[in-house]
Parts: sequence; structure tokens; C-alpha cells
Amino acid sequence: MNIPETMLASVLTEPERIELQRVGVPAPGPGQVLMRVTAVGVCGSDTHFYETGRIGDIVVDGPIVLGHETAGEVVAVGAGVDPSRVGEQVAIEPQMPCRRCDFCKTGSYHLCRSMRFYGAYPVDGSFSEYALIDDDFAHPIPEGMTPEQAALVEPVSVAVHACRRAGIVPGAKVFITGAGPIGVLTAQVARAFGATEVVISDPIPHRRAYAEARGVTQALDPAEADLSRYDQYFDVYIDASAHAGAIGSAFPAIRPGGVAVLVGMGGLNLDVPIAMIQHREITLTGTYRYVNTWPTAIDLIATEAIEVDSLVTGRYGLDAVEEALTKAKTDPVAIKTMIIPSLTASEG
Amino acid sequence: MNIPETMLASVLTEPERIELQRVGVPAPGPGQVLMRVTAVGVCGSDTHFYETGRIGDIVVDGPIVLGHETAGEVVAVGAGVDPSRVGEQVAIEPQMPCRRCDFCKTGSYHLCRSMRFYGAYPVDGSFSEYALIDDDFAHPIPEGMTPEQAALVEPVSVAVHACRRAGIVPGAKVFITGAGPIGVLTAQVARAFGATEVVISDPIPHRRAYAEARGVTQALDPAEADLSRYDQYFDVYIDASAHAGAIGSAFPAIRPGGVAVLVGMGGLNLDVPIAMIQHREITLTGTYRYVNTWPTAIDLIATEAIEVDSLVTGRYGLDAVEEALTKAKTDPVAIKTMIIPSLTASEG
Amino acid sequence: MNIPETMLASVLTEPERIELQRVGVPAPGPGQVLMRVTAVGVCGSDTHFYETGRIGDIVVDGPIVLGHETAGEVVAVGAGVDPSRVGEQVAIEPQMPCRRCDFCKTGSYHLCRSMRFYGAYPVDGSFSEYALIDDDFAHPIPEGMTPEQAALVEPVSVAVHACRRAGIVPGAKVFITGAGPIGVLTAQVARAFGATEVVISDPIPHRRAYAEARGVTQALDPAEADLSRYDQYFDVYIDASAHAGAIGSAFPAIRPGGVAVLVGMGGLNLDVPIAMIQHREITLTGTYRYVNTWPTAIDLIATEAIEVDSLVTGRYGLDAVEEALTKAKTDPVAIKTMIIPSLTASEG
Amino acid sequence: MNIPETMLASVLTEPERIELQRVGVPAPGPGQVLMRVTAVGVCGSDTHFYETGRIGDIVVDGPIVLGHETAGEVVAVGAGVDPSRVGEQVAIEPQMPCRRCDFCKTGSYHLCRSMRFYGAYPVDGSFSEYALIDDDFAHPIPEGMTPEQAALVEPVSVAVHACRRAGIVPGAKVFITGAGPIGVLTAQVARAFGATEVVISDPIPHRRAYAEARGVTQALDPAEADLSRYDQYFDVYIDASAHAGAIGSAFPAIRPGGVAVLVGMGGLNLDVPIAMIQHREITLTGTYRYVNTWPTAIDLIATEAIEVDSLVTGRYGLDAVEEALTKAKTDPVAIKTMIIPSLTASEG
Repeated sequence: MNIPETMLASVLTEPERIELQRVGVPAPGPGQVLMRVTAVGVCGSDTHFYETGRIGDIVVDGPIVLGHETAGEVVAVGAGVDPSRVGEQVAIEPQMPCRRCDFCKTGSYHLCRSMRFYGAYPVDGSFSEYALIDDDFAHPIPEGMTPEQAALVEPVSVAVHACRRAGIVPGAKVFITGAGPIGVLTAQVARAFGATEVVISDPIPHRRAYAEARGVTQALDPAEADLSRYDQYFDVYIDASAHAGAIGSAFPAIRPGGVAVLVGMGGLNLDVPIAMIQHREITLTGTYRYVNTWPTAIDLIATEAIEVDSLVTGRYGLDAVEEALTKAKTDPVAIKTMIIPSLTASEG
Repeated sequence: MNIPETMLASVLTEPERIELQRVGVPAPGPGQVLMRVTAVGVCGSDTHFYETGRIGDIVVDGPIVLGHETAGEVVAVGAGVDPSRVGEQVAIEPQMPCRRCDFCKTGSYHLCRSMRFYGAYPVDGSFSEYALIDDDFAHPIPEGMTPEQAALVEPVSVAVHACRRAGIVPGAKVFITGAGPIGVLTAQVARAFGATEVVISDPIPHRRAYAEARGVTQALDPAEADLSRYDQYFDVYIDASAHAGAIGSAFPAIRPGGVAVLVGMGGLNLDVPIAMIQHREITLTGTYRYVNTWPTAIDLIATEAIEVDSLVTGRYGLDAVEEALTKAKTDPVAIKTMIIPSLTASEG
Repeated sequence: MNIPETMLASVLTEPERIELQRVGVPAPGPGQVLMRVTAVGVCGSDTHFYETGRIGDIVVDGPIVLGHETAGEVVAVGAGVDPSRVGEQVAIEPQMPCRRCDFCKTGSYHLCRSMRFYGAYPVDGSFSEYALIDDDFAHPIPEGMTPEQAALVEPVSVAVHACRRAGIVPGAKVFITGAGPIGVLTAQVARAFGATEVVISDPIPHRRAYAEARGVTQALDPAEADLSRYDQYFDVYIDASAHAGAIGSAFPAIRPGGVAVLVGMGGLNLDVPIAMIQHREITLTGTYRYVNTWPTAIDLIATEAIEVDSLVTGRYGLDAVEEALTKAKTDPVAIKTMIIPSLTASEG
Repeated sequence: MNIPETMLASVLTEPERIELQRVGVPAPGPGQVLMRVTAVGVCGSDTHFYETGRIGDIVVDGPIVLGHETAGEVVAVGAGVDPSRVGEQVAIEPQMPCRRCDFCKTGSYHLCRSMRFYGAYPVDGSFSEYALIDDDFAHPIPEGMTPEQAALVEPVSVAVHACRRAGIVPGAKVFITGAGPIGVLTAQVARAFGATEVVISDPIPHRRAYAEARGVTQALDPAEADLSRYDQYFDVYIDASAHAGAIGSAFPAIRPGGVAVLVGMGGLNLDVPIAMIQHREITLTGTYRYVNTWPTAIDLIATEAIEVDSLVTGRYGLDAVEEALTKAKTDPVAIKTMIIPSLTASEG
């Protein structure tokens, strides 16, 4: 494959400033692959980085290429990687664990004590024509899966991890607050896990309508719904709203021995009905990204167990990353915007 | 065995009034055994019933015999029960589940939708010379185990259930807040489950000393201890203090993927560090009584894996139940008071 | 509801002799319901009882009504049962555990130390116009589910239990030997549990065709298939053939850490590749009936996650039970024959 | 630390021929540590390699240093390793997984698709003065633990892994066949996991006596014991004898829902009572080495939950490896022989 020496990359040089630069194409190190980027989803955390230059403990301290919901085609491999991978279409899992700590060795590499995050300072992401990733985090996708679907494996993975943490089994009854992209993906994945009843709650009518068209049993308006009819009813409650009021109102609807999983990140603290949690032995936990989810998420999309195409509401070239980052936040209709490097307007 | 027609029973007739009455000895129904009561521990909930006539949703609405931490000797059996059980020494599990609901049939009978509680209105307990219980909730104890030890299987069961809910495995590092009877029993059970490090925290010096003499690795004074040295250190955190401040300060000491189990019942609500719970995928839950714990708890006491004798700080006859109930609450040195029917002063 | 005093029942009086008798309609005892029987599937064990008068340790020692794959309508309730259940359509779980032993109390009532089997001597089954069952083993079915579907919940439960024992999770790759009714139901349930690849093997072409029409990824002819291409490939292997040769050939296809579940009962002993089981840490187990499967199995049928109607290949009245029992065994096309009491020719 | 340029190593040059050679001290690569070897246990597989030049699929195809039950002191570190580790006493886990395959990433690195084995061709082991290992497989041991104890962490790990695979929980009743080193270590670890009854069976009287002195509840002579009194009694059965007759006789003693774990490697095939396995839903599996066991095994030894010192029955220098390898097999009294490099007779 003919790999050029330079490429275009959208570089965050300081908060609220992204420049389209021509930079060198990196060479894959041992155990790495180089891919030609075909599609990258824009995540809320990308927008947050762009606006503030930080997220949580991670502070941007120099130029950085954002973008971590990535699809690509392998164009070169580093030492120790099977050369026959060249030409493979892949979906990228943006994690770089140490592979050596106790978390990595017990199947919880997402909790790695020395995790480096792909697309977060100081590791460049994928808003560029080419990008690097460790061999085993470039997951092959089946023929027929599109680059956009491959990029959407990342948010689907968030939903898969949430459903696993919640222990959803066939026959489960599930309640979800928040019908944004993650809420609706979680609802779809819950159905694919065998949940026979999935009720979702969201104050925005078009979100409820979108959810109802994707396998949700019932979509409630929290302003009108009487949750008391679901007293101690659900096996599983998942929050994808990060709204304290929504979370608080959901607990009485969880059955004894049930599970509450909070996916959406909200405030630092939360007031929870602890006596109810104790008396009913409810288990409360949260999710942090995902672990070992790519193969399953790819299968769910490839077998059409879940539908993701309708999430994409905009496509931009590398020359329009700032617009895409802003749009993702301000446009009320935008669900998921995509960066498609091949759409980049030619230079000069 | 010679069973009399009447017996002495300490009857709660109204809040703060217990009368020693002579009543009929009940006959065992189908599936039940009649036991001669040999020892009954006084629980905080007994004292609460005595003082207020209620606990949670359960309201005393007529005369009731309290007492549910019970040891006895089987003296008669009802229809369907093996008659050879007569003469057997037993430890009583004070639960009366329906045996038919989905919780009962999936191994969580303590969450039974129709649970009736032994020693809580309207079911008489064991502050009496004889008492009834379902056959399979009268667990045989091995030769050499004393009645007081058998009565203490109940609080030990609280600890066993907490350690199971917490998933304590050999090698676990455990942090416990509260070195009262449940805290110290939990610490001992955690060691018996293979925990190699058990740190306990309590502001009262003699409680810390008591804990340190019973296998705790270290007993901390929360006013002085610097918990930051235990940052993300413990696999398991168990609260036995019901103190919101203690609980709040413990979370940073839990490792990612760790578990927090709240045994002590405190307020209705609790402010928890939810971002930390999510980011570290900590699991928070509580315990409700116990389920399937008696055989294990009996084994732990019988094999001297845990020590319980030193918990008993007072013994009273049926004629002194009010004194025992009050003492349990007001005496700063009292840990566990026992009602021993055979100590009852003979009737005038 | 108008309940007659007598009813027709097909009574096995001795091996190979079933008489249509007019007998009294039984009255429901405490905790029981009386149902009007609407459909009963014929099971291989019914035929075996009919031919030999025994199965395993259970020996017919007097007249007995066979039939345990039962659908009905509740027509009367015993003491302690909600009277509003009268009129309810139900699917019967034919187990009568003691509810008191350690297995019953830990969620494994199917392994009950004192299990009595419905439709096996000395407990009458359902080849009759009316029949009794414990309240909680008469599971309500949703509107629109047919009596035959309700009767088929029993074999579906065998498949659900097998898939649970096998730990099938979304994304699992499953291999099944034997495409008889249980094999194909297991394949369908595996898909409903999220298995993305289900390969089945059977020497009979029309069975393979039937399986392929019901969601199986691939149906193999064992005489021609080269299993070596599936070396260490499958997460789960389930046998529904009871054929030692089929089982033996399947082990190399199981991945390290995988599971083998034998559903079909064959010989007393089996030669297994133990070094491979050890070296690859394969887990081998079997299934015994089912436990806590009815609600899930009902959901799977009601939501059309699995298709069962096509299994029924014959319908007979109570006057033709012998023919049905024989047909089930000798007719090569028969999959599942049903006894429909309402089809019984009028007497005399 | 002063590291010499050359060292003594006992090299297997062909079957049944080991030469004490002076070779170069290897330099630690990235992520590796160099240790001064302080003690190495002799394993049956070492003897097997020595005698036949192969074990299973691994064939010795050139000179190789055997020895994998290793204790040492870190004397140098490679790139990326914390230099403060120099001087640390360590116990070596002899596995070299790829860290990238699905097994490695899901917590089952012992089943790694590309595992290389330490001390098995082509990777040199520890019958030498110095040796290399990956940083994270050199587990720190606490002060006071001896080199021999550290070397014995390897066989203890076999026992820990077996007890984990068997799901031993507090209160478990365990039956073990074979009272050799692994059998007795497994018995001790089972007790440390909370098993309250551990029965062991072995035909050799002094092995039974050794087991009885180490916490076993009862040691049976299989020639005389009547196992029928243990009908369906044990929660867990573990074989450490690799004797088909012993294994076959043990199944009836396993309770329904119980577990059988075969640790000892015997023949390729085994005849098992499959109907009993199915009817009682017994789970049968084996163990392959160990995974994530070192910290727990070290804790068990350090806290004296298990006793290992008495296993050591001989100590040899590097100049006597052949004698040690032979002695381990032929001496009826030898349990575990140790290679202690510092005991090596000076050259020349």
C-alpha cells in the first residue's frame, strides 16, 4: 500500500483553537498498526477538551489531535504484528492499558493503574488522515459493516458495558432514564441481551419518539408518568441522564435484589435513598468506559440486533472539525456528528 | 419428654410495659417443632419495640412476646417432622418466609414478598419457657456448643451475610467502620473467610482494644488516623457504624472495582461520592438480615474460627426482661445481654 | 365456575395398558389450584413409563395418570390461594419440591432431596379433564398464548435451563449435537440469549433443514463435516443427541475455558478426553430438568423470540392416549404429539 | 549491586545429560528484571524433561536450563522498570503470556494462545546463578519469608488455583484423593479458604499421617474405607492422584450441584459416570497451572495459614542437579528437593 510521508491532522493548539496542519505520518512501533482513518465520531468529551483544554485530571499541555471513536483501514504494521492484517477494516478501541498491573491481569484493564487514553493528552487521536493504535485494539469488522458503523462501536461499547455491569439476562425488566444516544443504545442492547421489558424516561418528546421506534417497550414523560405503578418492579435500572432528580425518583421502582447502574456522569456527590438500598439489598454502581466489549458490540451491529445508522446527523471533513465540535453541542437536533477525513476540502 | 401445659412468658402488653404471664404451651403445627428455650440474646430491635411499640412498618397491635436470638432444645414435633429430632439442641433462624414467591424459590428467601418475622408482631418470639419454629429453621448444633453460643449464631449470621455480600475471598483486604458487636463479629468472620488484612475504625478506645484482641490487623481512631495512606487500597469496605461521616470518609480508601457494604442502618438518605463510585466502578449495597447463613455461622463458632463468648455481658431470667432491655441500651459496658429462662426467679 | 363431580382420565393400570376411566374430580388442598386441562404434550418419558412401568428409580406400583407438559385454566383454588386466579390460563411446571431442604432454600429446588414428580408414580399427572398443582407452579400466561404453546413451555424450559447452565451470553459461539426437538429449541433459545453463531449437527437431513429454518447459523452432517476447522472455536457445546460418538467428536471444537453441557440422557458411563478437559480447563456438566425457568420460557414464546408451533405434529383425545404414546415413538415424522382433552370422543 | 559477567548454569544438553556450564549473565530487556537465584524447587516436569527431552507438545530442541519454582533477589532492572526494585526478594511466577489475546485480556492469561513457558524449551529457567523474568511476574515477598518458602509459592499456587476453580467457600466439605505434595497443599489451602471438613484418601500410611498433621479432618485408606457413608456428601471433590480408580470411586460422594476438579494429570481419556453427573448436575473440570495466584499464595504462607517448610526433603547445589532430579523420583521419602545455587561446590 502506498503510504504518503505527510498527512493532514486537525490539531488542538490551545483551548478553542484547532488548526488543520500538515504533519508527518507516524510509523508503527512494535505491536502497533498504522491505519488510514475512515470515520471518527465526535464525542462530548472532545467538545469539552476543545472548550476547556481539560477533562477531569487530564490537562492538555501541548498540541494534541483529538478523536477516539474511530474506524479505519490497516495500511502498515509494526514489528511482531501479522503483516496479513494490511488491508483489514477495523474499529478502534481507544484504550492503552499497561498490560501488567493487577487490573490488567484480572480482566479489568479499563481500571488499569497506568492507563493512557487514546485521543487525550499526551496521546494523539484520530482527527487526521492516518493514526496509530496497538494491534489488539484494532478490532476487525466483518464485510459489509460501514466505517460509520465501525466508529459507532465505541458508544455501543458504553451500552454493552452498562448492560453487563447491570447483569441483564433474558427476561429482565429494565428501566432507563435519559433517551439520548447512550440511553437509546443501552435500551437496544438491553433488548439484544434478552430483556423483555425496557421502559425509558425522557422529558423531550422527539427523544421519546426516537426511542419508541427502536424497540423500547414504553417511553415515559417524567412530568406526567406515575412511577408508583412500577413499585419494586424492575430488575435493573440504568441512568443515562446524569440528572439527580431522575435518579432519585427511580429507586422505588427497583425490585429487592435489583441493580442500579449510573452511566451518565453528573455531579461529584449524590443523595441516595440509602435505607431503601439497604432494606431491599439494591446494588448501586457506575460504569467507567468499557472493557472487552468490541467483539460483542461489533456482532450486535453486524447482525442488526441493534440499529445505529440513524444516530449520525452530520458529516464533516478534517477542515471542519471546529464546526463539528460546536454543532455537536449547540444543534438541538444533532445526535452524533462524524469526521470523515475523505471529505476534507483539498488544500490551498 | 414431659411437657407442661402452661409456661412463663414475658409479654409486651403496651410500649414500655412487659408482664411475666403464665400462658398455655403452644402445640407444634404441621412442619413445626416445639422447643424448650435455653437462651435468648437481647437485640437492639427488641429494645426499640419495647420503647416505641414499633419498628419500621411493623406496629405492635396487641400483646406480643419479643426475643429472636434463640437457642433451645426440641421437645415435640408437629406432623411431617422427624420425631427423632426430640432432644436435639438447636439454634433458631427467626425468619418465616412464604416459600412460594420468586425470591423464596431463587435462594433469596430473606427478601420474601410475604415475610413474617419471628418475635415481631404478630408472631410471638422466645422470651418464654417454650416456643415454636418451623422445622427447617431450627438448625442442629454440634455437641459441646453452649446455648449462649447457639443464640449468638444470629448476630454472627449478620456478619456472615455481610461478608458474603461483600464477596470476601482469601487474600482480601478489608476496612470496617464501627467496632461494636457487629463490627467485630464481621472482622472475625472476614478473617475466617481468608481476609489477610482487616483494619477497623472506632472512636471508642475499649472497642478498639476489644477488636485488636480478636484478629483485627489494625484498629484506628478516626480522629487521629490518616486514611490517605490507604488511598484506593481496600478490596472491601463494610460499615457497621451507621455513621454518615465514617462512611463518607471511607470511600477514597476503596480500590477500583471494590465493594462497599453498609450493614448498620442509619438515616433514610445518604450523600455519597457518586463520581468516585462511577469512575472507580465501586459497588455499593446494603444487607438485610441474612439468608442461608446458619450452618456456616454454626461451623465458624464450633470450629473456634471466631470467638463469641466474650460478647455476653449479662444474664437475666424471664422476670427481668425489662431490666435486660434497658441495660442493653444504657450500660456503656454492656455488649450483649442474655435472657436465660432457667434463671427466672420462681413464682411467688 | 361449574365443576362436575367426575371426569375422564387416562389411567395407566399396568405396563402397556391405559384405560379411559371416569373418576372423581379432585378437590384442591391448601396452596393448590384445580385446573381444567386444555393441552398436554407427550414426552418420551411418558412413552417409557407406558412401555416398561418405570423410569430410573421410579417404579409404577399402582394406577397412575401420566402427562406433565400441561396447559390449563384455573377453575378452583384451595385454602390460602388468591381466589381471583379462577379463570386464569396457566402453564404447569411439573415439580413438587419439599420447599424446606438446603437445595430448595438456595435456589436449586430441582435438586430437592425429597422431590416428588408430577405425572410420575405416585403423583397423578394431566392426561385427564381436570388436574391439581401447587399454586406457584401454575404460571400465568399472557393473553394470546395458546394452550399448545403453554404446554410447550416445558420442553422450552429444558432448553432455557441448558443455556443458563452453559452460561450463554451475547456474542457466544455455540455448537449443538442433535437437531431433535430439544436440540432445535436449545438452538433457538441460544440465539435469544444473544449467541451470534449457533452450529448444529445431525445425521438426518430433514432435521437439519428444520433447524436451518429456525435461526441456526449452520447445520452440519456429521458424516461429511470437517470439525477440525472449528478447532478450539466454540464457547459452548451442548449435546442433545445422547450419542457418545457425537459427544466425543465435539470436545476438540471447544475453546479453552469453554463449557460442555450434556442435556440428552444416554448411557451410565462415558469415555471423555480428560487430558484435553484439564489442559483447556473445559467445564463439563449435565442438566436435570429445570429450575425457575417458566417465566423466562413463557416470555420467549410470547415475544416470538422463539417459534414452537411447528413442533406439534399430532393431536389426540383422552381416548387415544395409547395411540399418541406409540406414535410419538414410531412415527419418523412425529416431533411432538399433544393430548387435547376436548377432542375426546364422547362416551358410550 | 555487583553483577558478574559470567555465572554457573546447569544446562540440559540432551536427554539424561545435564552439564554445569559457565555462561554469560543475561541482561534484563525492557520490562524485565534480573535476579540472583536463591532457591529453586524440583518439579516432576523437570525430571520428565530430563529423562525424555519433552513434555506434552514441548520438545527440547537445543540446550536448555530447567527449573521454574524459583525464588530470587532482584539485582538489576530493564527499561521501564522501577529501579527501586533492586534488592527486593521475590517469588517467580513462571509464565510468559502474550498479554494481547482474548484470554490475556479477560483474566485468563494462563490459557494464553501464545504462552511461552519459563524453564521449558526454548525459554531458560532458573537452575543457574542468575535468571531473567518479566517485572510483573517477579512478585515481592514480605520480610521474614525464606527463599525456600518463596520457591514453594509455585506448588501452593497449583493448590490455590484448584480451590478457586472448585469454588471452595467457608463451610465447604471437601474430599481429596491423593496425599502427595499437591494433595496436602490443596487440603491446607481448602482449610484456609474456610472449608470446615477436608477428608483425604491415600493408600500410603506415611502420607496419610503427614496429611493428618496438617489440618485434614480425616485421612482414609482407600483399601479399607467405606465411602458409601459419604453418599452425596461433599460439596467439592479434588483429585491429586491422577488415579482413574480413585477418581471413579469418588463421584458418588459428591452432592448434587457439587464440583469435581481434577488436578493430577493422568491418561488421555477417562471413563466417567455421566448419568450421575447429569442427574446430579455435578460440574467436572480440570486445572491448568494457575492464574493470578501468587499474591494470595504468598499471603497464605506468610500468615502461616498453611505450612510448607516440612515439604523440603533435600537441598543440592547446581553441581548436583542430576542427583536432585533423580532423587525426586526414586527416593520414596523425598517430597520436594531444592536446588540452592549457593550450595554449589566451587569450581575447579
